[in-house]
Amino acid sequence: MMQGYLETGETDTAVFEFFVRKLPKNRNFFVAAGLEQVLDFLEHLHVPADELAWLGASGHVSDDLIDYLSDFRFTGDVHAMPEGTVFFPNEPVIRITAPLPEAQYVETRLINILHFQTLIASKAARMVMAAEGRTLVDFGLRRAHGAEAGLMAARAAYLAGFDGSANVLAERLYGVPAFGTMAHSFVQAFDTETAAFEAFARARPERLVLLIDTYDTEEGARRVVSLAPRLKESGIGISGIRLDSGDMAALSKSVRRILDDGGLPDVTIFASGGLDEAGIGELIASGAVIDGFGVGTSLTTASDAPALDCAYKLQEYAGIPRRKRSEGKATWPGRKQVWRRFDKTGRMVGDIISVHDDDLDGSKMIDCVMRNGKRLAPPRSLDEIRGHMSTQINTLPKDLAGLGAARHYPVSVAEALTDLAASVDRRIDRSLCRAP
Amino acid sequence: MMQGYLETGETDTAVFEFFVRKLPKNRNFFVAAGLEQVLDFLEHLHVPADELAWLGASGHVSDDLIDYLSDFRFTGDVHAMPEGTVFFPNEPVIRITAPLPEAQYVETRLINILHFQTLIASKAARMVMAAEGRTLVDFGLRRAHGAEAGLMAARAAYLAGFDGSANVLAERLYGVPAFGTMAHSFVQAFDTETAAFEAFARARPERLVLLIDTYDTEEGARRVVSLAPRLKESGIGISGIRLDSGDMAALSKSVRRILDDGGLPDVTIFASGGLDEAGIGELIASGAVIDGFGVGTSLTTASDAPALDCAYKLQEYAGIPRRKRSEGKATWPGRKQVWRRFDKTGRMVGDIISVHDDDLDGSKMIDCVMRNGKRLAPPRSLDEIRGHMSTQINTLPKDLAGLGAARHYPVSVAEALTDLAASVDRRIDRSLCRAP
Repeated sequence: MMQGYLETGETDTAVFEFFVRKLPKNRNFFVAAGLEQVLDFLEHLHVPADELAWLGASGHVSDDLIDYLSDFRFTGDVHAMPEGTVFFPNEPVIRITAPLPEAQYVETRLINILHFQTLIASKAARMVMAAEGRTLVDFGLRRAHGAEAGLMAARAAYLAGFDGSANVLAERLYGVPAFGTMAHSFVQAFDTETAAFEAFARARPERLVLLIDTYDTEEGARRVVSLAPRLKESGIGISGIRLDSGDMAALSKSVRRILDDGGLPDVTIFASGGLDEAGIGELIASGAVIDGFGVGTSLTTASDAPALDCAYKLQEYAGIPRRKRSEGKATWPGRKQVWRRFDKTGRMVGDIISVHDDDLDGSKMIDCVMRNGKRLAPPRSLDEIRGHMSTQINTLPKDLAGLGAARHYPVSVAEALTDLAASVDRRIDRSLCRAP
Repeated sequence: MMQGYLETGETDTAVFEFFVRKLPKNRNFFVAAGLEQVLDFLEHLHVPADELAWLGASGHVSDDLIDYLSDFRFTGDVHAMPEGTVFFPNEPVIRITAPLPEAQYVETRLINILHFQTLIASKAARMVMAAEGRTLVDFGLRRAHGAEAGLMAARAAYLAGFDGSANVLAERLYGVPAFGTMAHSFVQAFDTETAAFEAFARARPERLVLLIDTYDTEEGARRVVSLAPRLKESGIGISGIRLDSGDMAALSKSVRRILDDGGLPDVTIFASGGLDEAGIGELIASGAVIDGFGVGTSLTTASDAPALDCAYKLQEYAGIPRRKRSEGKATWPGRKQVWRRFDKTGRMVGDIISVHDDDLDGSKMIDCVMRNGKRLAPPRSLDEIRGHMSTQINTLPKDLAGLGAARHYPVSVAEALTDLAASVDRRIDRSLCRAP
């Protein structure tokens, strides 16, 4: 495609927008995530010499394109919703304004970044709501789809309110607190479960959580009680125990009793093993005595809806608004803005999508964050983004802040935008008629 | 955990095995994939100086562990099923035999690699069966979970019989044939659809496929017919057209007629847009005239089952078989082998899992591929693996080679293994009784 643009001189300014077409089943909103990684990608965009050499030798592209790519940079503007912002179907989340070949080149990776983190932040938000303030830790690297997915999921989950991740690299790169974990294999390697508990405790006494279900959960809890005084003599306190199998509502109660009776009322109970937001909600509703949850696969693969119906579409080129009209996939043309309105208590009541320079009441959701390929502000800290997302979730209409499907949040299209779409349609029809 | 092992001197030889606990709904088999990446990972395993420095400064680990990690290498053995081999629940796919800290350290990444490629190869195999010989191309990078997932999925899909991928890096790294694609934005950027088609054709005349649904599919097909003679004068042939929306069964027939009537009977019809194996099967069953499919999200996210219930478990330590007995997650202890039996026509009829040194009839499925951290043979080419997988699929019992759930393939556990499990249970019970 780039070769086609260059050969025909189609290098004028293009405007693309990224949006999601519809909500997955049982979802009420999305949360924008991944913007910082997109800006990093754009700011450092270039084609490394070895890739260029390979591409030249591949026979896929012309020498002119290789020349063009040799000093290729992203020189455009980016307008976006801040990371952590709640959004709804058809609302533009990010707008790229750049020479057409640049805006086209970045398409795949931009979608790849935004889609996945938005997917996970939106999923993690549901888990945070379900956990009602209990600790949540990401355990999902192993079954995430590759290493990058595990890392990005740890970031997106923390952004959404998780307390940390078992992915240590996420602490190094993003400051997501690392939580050490203990595997069944550790317990199995020692002759007795108690020996394993003691070795783990002495090796990593901080935030100590012992996994007690390798052989028999209640027996494991009794061993923790027996071991605690000996550890205490060494100044080691047990922070918690972890359940990973069986009837966790029942086990949490019997284990709580064993710990309390054994003089360990402050030892918390942590649960993991195939949990998702529904499982967390059910455990809490059934009176399970659980202080925190480790969530793995359902988080990092967004297992109930592992993809969003998102798109990155050309909305304007060479100053002329454009529109795709494919059946079931038509898009709203032109550069757009989203205005959000709130009630007196500060809760959001409805959004309006219109052309970007319309004059409407409400808060504008999209701002310029990059101009001519340079960020307008330094990267925001993850904790800042996390705070913004928490505020956003707290201003959701109450009926949207649950796990089940609620009424659709009202998103309307302003007259200025429907007028523009109609005029684009008339132009397309004229040009299609006159086309050879 | 590593610190615990080192401090207590638990550095004896451990044996871990990777397996999948159960089939997802509607699946009849798995296909092993990712072994080459696992071997690469193990062969090059080390902790880079910058990571070591960060870890030392993080306060998470002891100086002794940092020392140990500074010249950390994988020195163990690997036994595995060849990539592309069909396997079933509870069958060990890979066995790691190494000092305990090494075998534990590699756990997460090993699962991360094997799980994902196995997931995608197993999904792609279904699409290849559904397409009944038609062309299949991976279009799924954009909604894959990160860049690595997109790349690994392209590899796994090719291994399973796909013809190529729109992911160019997969051609560079793995030799997966790259297929160029044309986006709606390309069409929208030009004043007329015909001008867009012509620009694309002249820029990339090889394997030329024109996307015809941006405005009106049948009109698009007529424009292709009008344009063809002019392109022919320049020596450019149109290889195919692509449908990406609407009623594709009906459109494929009307477009076929337009192309045939326009003297283009050799122009193929390619379809994409939200397809999975069921969609492909339904289109073919409804008589759609489609020669090839582009498959995206459903492939690279394995959308109907985005994770497998896989595990990497300690089966032996310091010469003693081990077993996890957690409720619903108990494992078979010891080093194991899988024997597969075939009928006279060469189709597989049943597998037996037993201890690795049992003497049973059938083909042994697991071989040594790495000894003391070194590969025993150079990496196999992707085409070699692809050929092996194709043979494997062709030897499946006929009823398993469909899209719906079939009877379970017979996998039995040999007496030697049940005997071993019973003796491990007796040992665990004794040690649990005597435990403090």
